[in-house]
Amino acid sequence: MYVILVYDMEADRTQKMLRLGRRYLVHVQNSVLEGEITKGDLAELRGKIEDLLIVGESVVIYELSSESYLDRTVYGEDPKTDDQFL
Amino acid sequence: MYVILVYDMEADRTQKMLRLGRRYLVHVQNSVLEGEITKGDLAELRGKIEDLLIVGESVVIYELSSESYLDRTVYGEDPKTDDQFL
Repeated sequence: MYVILVYDMEADRTQKMLRLGRRYLVHVQNSVLEGEITKGDLAELRGKIEDLLIVGESVVIYELSSESYLDRTVYGEDPKTDDQFL
Repeated sequence: MYVILVYDMEADRTQKMLRLGRRYLVHVQNSVLEGEITKGDLAELRGKIEDLLIVGESVVIYELSSESYLDRTVYGEDPKTDDQFL
């Protein structure tokens, strides 16, 4: 399945979510990760997100059974080149 | 169709994108908007995004023909209550 993950964390904690997310997905923009993921890995990632979040922070996971349902258009610099980000 | 829009702007220009985006979509998280949109409105929004962006900024639009292809899970505070954001 294909997943888009967006996160909104306390400023000093964004790196924690980014490190976690990048073990499963590609970092495509400031607080956005996306990519193919297995059901097992997604379940694992969900659990770790729940453990990580504190009050005031949020994560939204958009899940699609296949990337084929999705059209992705980038304006400006295509952020999918991972090396642009820490 | 259903759209998820994520944006990465210069810090002092995020409000411009937010104001533009909120005329068409719901602001759901720090730099994320989503919602149902007509083809005409989406074409209009695309044009305005292209006019607005400067070098170093990026917008990614994820488009689905229907929200039914999408499962959305929120962890932490559900940001879809719009009044939480400027």
